[in-house]
Amino acid sequence: MAVYTDITDGDLETFLAGFDLGAPLALKGIAEGIENSNFLLETEAGRYILTIYERRVREEDLPYFITLMQWLAEHGFPSPTPQADRTGKLLHRLRDKPAALVSFLNGVSVHEPTVEHCRAAGEGLARLHLAAQGFPGHRANGLGHDAWRPLYAGHEADAEALKPGLAARIAADLDELERDWPSGLPQGVIHADMFPDNVFFLHGRFAAVIDFYFACNDALAYDLAVCLNSWCFDPAGELKRAHAHALLAGYEAVRPLTAIERESLPLLSRGAALRFFLTRLIDWGSTPAGALVKPKNPLEYEAKLAFLRRPDAMLGLFETNL
Amino acid sequence: MAVYTDITDGDLETFLAGFDLGAPLALKGIAEGIENSNFLLETEAGRYILTIYERRVREEDLPYFITLMQWLAEHGFPSPTPQADRTGKLLHRLRDKPAALVSFLNGVSVHEPTVEHCRAAGEGLARLHLAAQGFPGHRANGLGHDAWRPLYAGHEADAEALKPGLAARIAADLDELERDWPSGLPQGVIHADMFPDNVFFLHGRFAAVIDFYFACNDALAYDLAVCLNSWCFDPAGELKRAHAHALLAGYEAVRPLTAIERESLPLLSRGAALRFFLTRLIDWGSTPAGALVKPKNPLEYEAKLAFLRRPDAMLGLFETNL
Repeated sequence: MAVYTDITDGDLETFLAGFDLGAPLALKGIAEGIENSNFLLETEAGRYILTIYERRVREEDLPYFITLMQWLAEHGFPSPTPQADRTGKLLHRLRDKPAALVSFLNGVSVHEPTVEHCRAAGEGLARLHLAAQGFPGHRANGLGHDAWRPLYAGHEADAEALKPGLAARIAADLDELERDWPSGLPQGVIHADMFPDNVFFLHGRFAAVIDFYFACNDALAYDLAVCLNSWCFDPAGELKRAHAHALLAGYEAVRPLTAIERESLPLLSRGAALRFFLTRLIDWGSTPAGALVKPKNPLEYEAKLAFLRRPDAMLGLFETNL
Repeated sequence: MAVYTDITDGDLETFLAGFDLGAPLALKGIAEGIENSNFLLETEAGRYILTIYERRVREEDLPYFITLMQWLAEHGFPSPTPQADRTGKLLHRLRDKPAALVSFLNGVSVHEPTVEHCRAAGEGLARLHLAAQGFPGHRANGLGHDAWRPLYAGHEADAEALKPGLAARIAADLDELERDWPSGLPQGVIHADMFPDNVFFLHGRFAAVIDFYFACNDALAYDLAVCLNSWCFDPAGELKRAHAHALLAGYEAVRPLTAIERESLPLLSRGAALRFFLTRLIDWGSTPAGALVKPKNPLEYEAKLAFLRRPDAMLGLFETNL
């Protein structure tokens, strides 16, 4: 939940004077996104999400995110479409902060995805990967596999405090993932955060993907691993095999995986689980008590990581008859 | 800003099964209201605000608020209209908490009201008072003039810490207000919190009033005093006389004040300023550091109170040529 910057009617008037969107009809701060301030803005021309970028987003990354959203919209992928101002610019300023105005998308995210939701999410992710092909922007994955060791440095005691023995176990994970990380994986634009809350469904069908603020260039199959981890585990940290099978089948119905992608998926999933464990571990320790933004418990991803260390974690997942 | 209760798609499905509003199209937590969790909910039937009442609202007061909103809507006053479920009930439950579903209203609140906004707000308040006539519900004003002394008890040191000498000054205010508080003021339903952020304008015209969760039965002119204090002061704590004149003229164009109401207005305004000073003083001391809900600075109302102690504070405000 986040509205860090207030917008007055005067700010709004000044801002909208740069567009051809008519008069404002409604403005509501919305609880979406942790990093930015978001508003539902309705004008005579339609409904939009107005985002003000706060300090956790690096301003130099914004053109990548905004032009990617524009590219995806132009290539038929259902995602927020940035609105240009009268001068054609997609990145604006409001209260001396960078801001964007994107189309409002209908849809509701699912809290407990069914097998069919997982199939649709897999298809959606593959569609995203194909739609982004040819996008000229490039942004390195700042939370990719080469960032995990420096991320973990200094947080060994936090891990140990969470669970005795965990500090050494994470250190061993880092060693094994570095040693075994595959090369030769097809690269492209990845969403990098396609959790269920970033996917909208309408009448039970896939409708849109939002929140592209972790998007970057990396291995496509790593994005699928992020998705698998966030859509296909039960609360006890066990893989829901029918869900996972459907997610992979949905993905492959649109973009078949290469042999190396299939073989690497268990390791990529371990890596993706480690990535979310590490950022949650760090946020867990650094959020003041009483803050309204509750950090996510790192133990959820610790359990997934433990499951994914098992050599048989994904055995048989690609078989057609599960 | 407030979303204290999360709603999943499953919760929403269960909730909407009790209504004839079709499938959900969008659900967004919104940053409106401090006491409750609010969501923008769009269904195939239209757009609504879904409110979940958190512990700061007394459950026994909810029927008064909800039936008042229904009454106002039925009597042509632009305010949120509660939606009945299939059984005809206006008060619902969601995640085991009381909840209401009201119509979504277009409009944007103004941050720096102009003279014309003040005139429109005055007219709107008088329309509200007239529309509520005959409403059969009754709720005592829990923050009315007889509540101020007990509210202040135990907070003398907080007042003194804010400004040396203030503790005794507030004690003297309490004495004077108790001694001079008028009787014989026309009574009725008052909004009791009609600050600019609770009034919507569209294309510069008065459009609607929201947030009836302080509504109660009290002196109508006291409501006008609350409005005057929140719409017609500059940041330095001086009354903006043209704004105040317009607010009063707007009110009287719809509902002329009685002689005793006019005479009492300076004292009622002093009382209303004390009421908001006191609740802000208490919230100021009790909000943990780092909380995202920022308490409002009590000094804003301390300055208004100081102004309103002046015997000439409102001199000539009712003259037709200002």
